[in-house]
Amino acid sequence: MTSDITLATYLFNRIKQLGVEHILGVPGDFNLMLLDYIYEVPPLKWVGFCNELNAAYAADGYGRFKQTPGVLITTYGVGELSALNGISGARAESVPLLHIVGTTGRAIQEEHLLIHHVPPGDGLEEPDHTLYMQTSKPLACAHEFLYDPKKVLDQIDHVITQVAKQSKPGYLYIPVDMVHKKVPSDRLNTPLDLKVVNSGQQDLEDKVVQQVLDAIYQSRDPVIIADTLAERHHAVELVKELVEKTKFLSFNTSMGKGIVDENHPSYVGVYNGKASGKGIAETVEGSDLRIHIGPLFSDSNTGGFTHETKPETSIQLHPLYCSVKGHQYDHLHFYPVLEKIVKQLDVSKIPQNATPKPPRAPIEQEENAGSADGITQTYFTEFMNRFMRPNDSLLVESGTFQFACQDIYMKENSSFVTQIFYSSIGFTFPALVGSCVARREQNHPGRCILVEGDGSAQMTIQELGTMIRYKLNPTIFLLNNDGYSIERAIWGPQQGYNDICPNWKWTQLCESLGGTPGKDCASFKVSTKKQLDDLLISKEFESHSDKLRLVEVVLDAFDYPWRLRAQVQRMGKFNRDKFEAYAKNAGEV
Amino acid sequence: MTSDITLATYLFNRIKQLGVEHILGVPGDFNLMLLDYIYEVPPLKWVGFCNELNAAYAADGYGRFKQTPGVLITTYGVGELSALNGISGARAESVPLLHIVGTTGRAIQEEHLLIHHVPPGDGLEEPDHTLYMQTSKPLACAHEFLYDPKKVLDQIDHVITQVAKQSKPGYLYIPVDMVHKKVPSDRLNTPLDLKVVNSGQQDLEDKVVQQVLDAIYQSRDPVIIADTLAERHHAVELVKELVEKTKFLSFNTSMGKGIVDENHPSYVGVYNGKASGKGIAETVEGSDLRIHIGPLFSDSNTGGFTHETKPETSIQLHPLYCSVKGHQYDHLHFYPVLEKIVKQLDVSKIPQNATPKPPRAPIEQEENAGSADGITQTYFTEFMNRFMRPNDSLLVESGTFQFACQDIYMKENSSFVTQIFYSSIGFTFPALVGSCVARREQNHPGRCILVEGDGSAQMTIQELGTMIRYKLNPTIFLLNNDGYSIERAIWGPQQGYNDICPNWKWTQLCESLGGTPGKDCASFKVSTKKQLDDLLISKEFESHSDKLRLVEVVLDAFDYPWRLRAQVQRMGKFNRDKFEAYAKNAGEV
Repeated sequence: MTSDITLATYLFNRIKQLGVEHILGVPGDFNLMLLDYIYEVPPLKWVGFCNELNAAYAADGYGRFKQTPGVLITTYGVGELSALNGISGARAESVPLLHIVGTTGRAIQEEHLLIHHVPPGDGLEEPDHTLYMQTSKPLACAHEFLYDPKKVLDQIDHVITQVAKQSKPGYLYIPVDMVHKKVPSDRLNTPLDLKVVNSGQQDLEDKVVQQVLDAIYQSRDPVIIADTLAERHHAVELVKELVEKTKFLSFNTSMGKGIVDENHPSYVGVYNGKASGKGIAETVEGSDLRIHIGPLFSDSNTGGFTHETKPETSIQLHPLYCSVKGHQYDHLHFYPVLEKIVKQLDVSKIPQNATPKPPRAPIEQEENAGSADGITQTYFTEFMNRFMRPNDSLLVESGTFQFACQDIYMKENSSFVTQIFYSSIGFTFPALVGSCVARREQNHPGRCILVEGDGSAQMTIQELGTMIRYKLNPTIFLLNNDGYSIERAIWGPQQGYNDICPNWKWTQLCESLGGTPGKDCASFKVSTKKQLDDLLISKEFESHSDKLRLVEVVLDAFDYPWRLRAQVQRMGKFNRDKFEAYAKNAGEV
Repeated sequence: MTSDITLATYLFNRIKQLGVEHILGVPGDFNLMLLDYIYEVPPLKWVGFCNELNAAYAADGYGRFKQTPGVLITTYGVGELSALNGISGARAESVPLLHIVGTTGRAIQEEHLLIHHVPPGDGLEEPDHTLYMQTSKPLACAHEFLYDPKKVLDQIDHVITQVAKQSKPGYLYIPVDMVHKKVPSDRLNTPLDLKVVNSGQQDLEDKVVQQVLDAIYQSRDPVIIADTLAERHHAVELVKELVEKTKFLSFNTSMGKGIVDENHPSYVGVYNGKASGKGIAETVEGSDLRIHIGPLFSDSNTGGFTHETKPETSIQLHPLYCSVKGHQYDHLHFYPVLEKIVKQLDVSKIPQNATPKPPRAPIEQEENAGSADGITQTYFTEFMNRFMRPNDSLLVESGTFQFACQDIYMKENSSFVTQIFYSSIGFTFPALVGSCVARREQNHPGRCILVEGDGSAQMTIQELGTMIRYKLNPTIFLLNNDGYSIERAIWGPQQGYNDICPNWKWTQLCESLGGTPGKDCASFKVSTKKQLDDLLISKEFESHSDKLRLVEVVLDAFDYPWRLRAQVQRMGKFNRDKFEAYAKNAGEV
């Protein structure tokens, strides 16, 4: 075994083996030499971002759509810390993301030199160049500092494997003097084994599979609920197959929207506890067996903790456990279990649904807070139902429209992303860049479409320039409702803190940030229902579909979707009750 | 003692007592109720930012100019983590900053509910709502979670006191149900004692003062070096007094620029080791006594570790120690020591400088990488020497111009900020907002002026909208040199990773981001020396000085100041030598 390639070459080849073609980030003194090697491992390419948080968001977006880890490179301290919130979001919503941080050289670290970016000692002690690692460690599924040439290959392989298998973020810290270290290339001949298996648990797996099958065979009106972790753990096709085979009434959750094809005859709607559309909760909760695949029981994914989960009528298939009618088997990954279920299922034994599929109810209308011909969230939702096409990728930013978009019915083979659990506003604009990059790698036929509010867009707007730079052509619906309407709905509707920078000329921004209108971008503004409808038949609008299109959609500041109002009311009371009981119990009142 | 006010009222009154009038941040579900109370404690006012990192940068800028803690409010997780890099910069460069984070309620925490933003458990364990605190703890000088009404007043007072006295960032975490808790108001009658004293060390203090005085009296040609920690620890006036009293040749450092009045007859120039202007290092290093006040020995503040520091001819006065000719006294704060030195100094005993003040050398010219009539960094520096006026506040962003601006001579009573140690690009644009807010509070007569490169500006550009929103009127020189020129100077000048989004219409941005040209903003573009010079006599330019002015200054991408070239060359060799020795020593070659 001769050491014939550099550490950087090894690393980028491992990344290439994942199917990744673009590496995202921001250059900095301590990663420049590392970045050089990207160009030496085709087809890898560099995508530079305006700042590191945005690059992290984009890597997350890439990971969601490509179903391979997004790869992010930053420089230690300033870049690494700026990206941290993006990493935290990927951890919360289980997105694979490899964060590579270029650091000071080993000699410089051991001499504790006070190089720029280095954290000075708190008191008189010498600076500890590894201090910043303490901030990322709690958020990483794997975390290695490449310090010893003899160990680095194990470390790289370990972190990449964990990131891919756990679908979470991991870190590699690379001192600048380690980039060129020679390592053996022959290990690259064996690709990493990223298949999820429940090692040594075949008997338990088989037992659980049998229990699930028995439960299905004995049930009267089972339902399937497809949730976000099914998608994160590559089980979308298995879920579709299960739906197809069983024809059980099927549901997505808020975060799992689009997993079950929403035009499939068995699909009913989004199950979101008491915040579900008409007839949906009743159907789920009336069923005698709920097969919930990839559940994530956060507040906004459960209608404010109103998912009814009776253990005795519930099957949950999760990356960390499987449970069948109240029996929970920990550390049993659902994927191999589901694979066997789908394979072994005997369709002759399954029940025919006793409960008929409830009719698709019209979208509940919110009170119209603005003028009669003004666009409401409901109206915009109905517009989206007409605008969306098969193969489209829809991204919805955290905010009011997250609570309306559940009423969109996704077309065939379309994808949906919204960060409704971690809910970091500003996320989705850069995530759109990541999604466009992933879709281009895949030669995906559909469009990338973003719906985002003005308050969120102000957070990360500079990446409009990045979209222009890399000739990406998403369609962006910018909901201009004059502030943080989601916060207005929660508290202080008229308070100044819920205002944002006023008078942004949204339709001018593509040009200001580098675009040439008509050549690589086009902007539109709609303020009335008629103007919105006209987009669908506008030849001009359609003629620019190969460019970045930005549509400013003017909404009233106090136009909230019905589901948001309901959720706020429910969670407000929920919190007040809990706070009162706590204070009483603590003897504070 | 009756509990008659809310915790929030107490907190904001304590903040008001610091002399703070503006609180900076971004609203979020878990701080909205807290923000309500800002409006109830006049003259406190809220300044909303486009995102949390920018708000943190601004709070840092505010703290530097106001010399009181900047106060930042975010929501836990998403907001708190986004701000972290800004906090880290304040820690590195010793800026007082109070970060208040609104969190989930106590009952919700103890029930480990999976509310939005909450970090889910890593495995099967329940979510720990306090996980994110682990990320900020290593970066804070004080860190308290307000959980028990009986302890909260001590905790608040402790954190504020430490932030102010140590001049570093500190954290207060406030669960949403704690905001309204009733606490006694009478404690507010006693303001916090923020005076720095060396408790129980009066004898040691006196001994050190006498040693310093003796050293001065015995010296032949002493010099004074004013450095950044003198400013951070409120000793600027003491330093000025010492210079005035002694007439010793005096120097600022790169980070301490402007502390010694640069028009004072005793002022020589910026001492930056081997990267000093002509005659400066020779004068400092030829002296037999260097009185260095508030030193920070980072790479870029010492000309790449070429500050010559012979202990036997050196006095260092630092917040954590004082040293006199090789004797170091730890945990002795310099402020009370310097106060006594200035007071007790007998001018009849001090030496008259044997060394004459070296003449002010012309600025060293860099090679002109662009066209003959194009603007160079040197030319722009000379322009700034003509443009700057007394009372001005100058902010220079990390990048190439940091290495040129040392040749600007600051006018009377002017201030200078550059983050050359922590060097987080993007910092200074939002920090300018903080500085303008602070200057407005102070009714300061001068202008706020920013010099920033295009790559940095793209990081945080949205705060242009915030400047418009709050009617701030800085003058911004936007150096458009087509990428990260500082990185080009360091490595990979032609590599794609050093490019940024092209074709931004910089002079259109004020309007796009909410401004009305001629009313609240005005934009200019200069590409030649003549156009730049003409600004100084342009009536139109002057007529808009009450508005936000943005001047795009076109520079060549490869135009580097001489000092940057020298530094890169020196540090390149420095690093290579160290890496080679390390590898050899580790048996890796």
